[in-house]
Amino acid sequence: MTTPFVHPVNVTWGDCDPARIAYTARMPYFALDAINGWWEAHLDGDGWFQMEIDRNVGTPFVKLEMEFHSPVTPRHTLLCETYPVRLGNKSITFAVKGRQNDVLCFDGLFTCVFIIADQFKSQNVPAELRAMIEPLLREA
Amino acid sequence: MTTPFVHPVNVTWGDCDPARIAYTARMPYFALDAINGWWEAHLDGDGWFQMEIDRNVGTPFVKLEMEFHSPVTPRHTLLCETYPVRLGNKSITFAVKGRQNDVLCFDGLFTCVFIIADQFKSQNVPAELRAMIEPLLREA
Amino acid sequence: MTTPFVHPVNVTWGDCDPARIAYTARMPYFALDAINGWWEAHLDGDGWFQMEIDRNVGTPFVKLEMEFHSPVTPRHTLLCETYPVRLGNKSITFAVKGRQNDVLCFDGLFTCVFIIADQFKSQNVPAELRAMIEPLLREA
Amino acid sequence: MTTPFVHPVNVTWGDCDPARIAYTARMPYFALDAINGWWEAHLDGDGWFQMEIDRNVGTPFVKLEMEFHSPVTPRHTLLCETYPVRLGNKSITFAVKGRQNDVLCFDGLFTCVFIIADQFKSQNVPAELRAMIEPLLREA
Repeated sequence: MTTPFVHPVNVTWGDCDPARIAYTARMPYFALDAINGWWEAHLDGDGWFQMEIDRNVGTPFVKLEMEFHSPVTPRHTLLCETYPVRLGNKSITFAVKGRQNDVLCFDGLFTCVFIIADQFKSQNVPAELRAMIEPLLREA
Repeated sequence: MTTPFVHPVNVTWGDCDPARIAYTARMPYFALDAINGWWEAHLDGDGWFQMEIDRNVGTPFVKLEMEFHSPVTPRHTLLCETYPVRLGNKSITFAVKGRQNDVLCFDGLFTCVFIIADQFKSQNVPAELRAMIEPLLREA
Repeated sequence: MTTPFVHPVNVTWGDCDPARIAYTARMPYFALDAINGWWEAHLDGDGWFQMEIDRNVGTPFVKLEMEFHSPVTPRHTLLCETYPVRLGNKSITFAVKGRQNDVLCFDGLFTCVFIIADQFKSQNVPAELRAMIEPLLREA
Repeated sequence: MTTPFVHPVNVTWGDCDPARIAYTARMPYFALDAINGWWEAHLDGDGWFQMEIDRNVGTPFVKLEMEFHSPVTPRHTLLCETYPVRLGNKSITFAVKGRQNDVLCFDGLFTCVFIIADQFKSQNVPAELRAMIEPLLREA
């Protein structure tokens, strides 16, 4: 059994709107930061930047969906549990669950496709990535 | 028949990532700007800011989903067609379709609930808003 | 005499912080949007994106300074008067003055250097740009 | 002698523009995050959000200036050394120096004034804050 990967986000004043909670459009940012952090944690420190430039692998998003259950505030660290839930031939789907103070604030699913970065052309999941990802797949 | 509301976004250099296309997490920003623009266009210039502070009506998001069909770039204005597709007792769902140069770049659905802003408490859709919104409802 | 170039910004809910005014770190964004808009207006629609990719000219910032005189809010359009105040051999300095409802909210100076974009190497101001810019120079 | 406070920033793909370096307008964001982090570190975990809401103290910015010396990239953590350099009757000035891999990427000065938050009215530096800040003052 793998320990779940959790990406911490320090939510601050600048993330909040006049309702004194984090602005809705910040949530996809936080979730994408968490997915990038997942890659960094599992790919020798490489996030999307290094994947694109050093490995020539891009993973553009084709779909995202999020539900918001409880406001996010600067009162507590936002802990984003992040893990892959589906690996297709050419795509990967991540779940991200954002919690503060043990309360689920949002959850979401995010699907990316693999491309050859410098050609912006679809490709199968590279073998070494598949080998790394498959053992980490969990139910959403 | 109503003319569709279209919110234009000037996508620029700062919206783009190293793949030279607008960063995925910018898309929900653009879509929310379009929804805020829809309120401004249909509520005497009032967007979320004036709704909250002058009308004591908040509309926090409970759900969003987006599909990305084609990259967004600074080459063309991003035209976000925006309209309500469902009005419940306490909620509203918007569709946003983002197009550049007649190509559909993304579409999405966004659901908000109505609250009494200074109490952060659920409320029914206020009558004057319902009267304004109902004639504008369309199929997604 | 040239008409001053003014870049309009629709400040919204998402730009504001819990003090109900636009977050300080949004101001440099607005000002840079205005400078990019200045290029678009004076270079056949080309902003930084097209300058970099189509013209191989980059203009990275080496310095900025801003003073904040009055809060920026969603109550009025933010009108950013933007113009070049100094053109060196290899650099350009812009002034940006942001006003709402005829009140000066901020002003600032922003200095960029010219580079050959794909080499990230300093270059003199290209002749055709110098010819366009010089007549537009004004006192800060 | 005090140990310098350093705020780390994980710069990522989404912070970068098509030139593959962090977008200029992100730098003031990073610097403000560092200043907010400085407050959190020296005020029992309270940043601007808690200062405003729990302590009724606001510190709006009246001035900022930054110089950019070297590009910021996702290759290294951005370490923002942050400290107060001047404390007036009603204002405070911070220096922020951002470094990656021991290279100075930017430095800047940021001046804030103290206000009674719920009145948006100027006030003297509160005594307990002055007592905390004075020993930490250094040359810029």
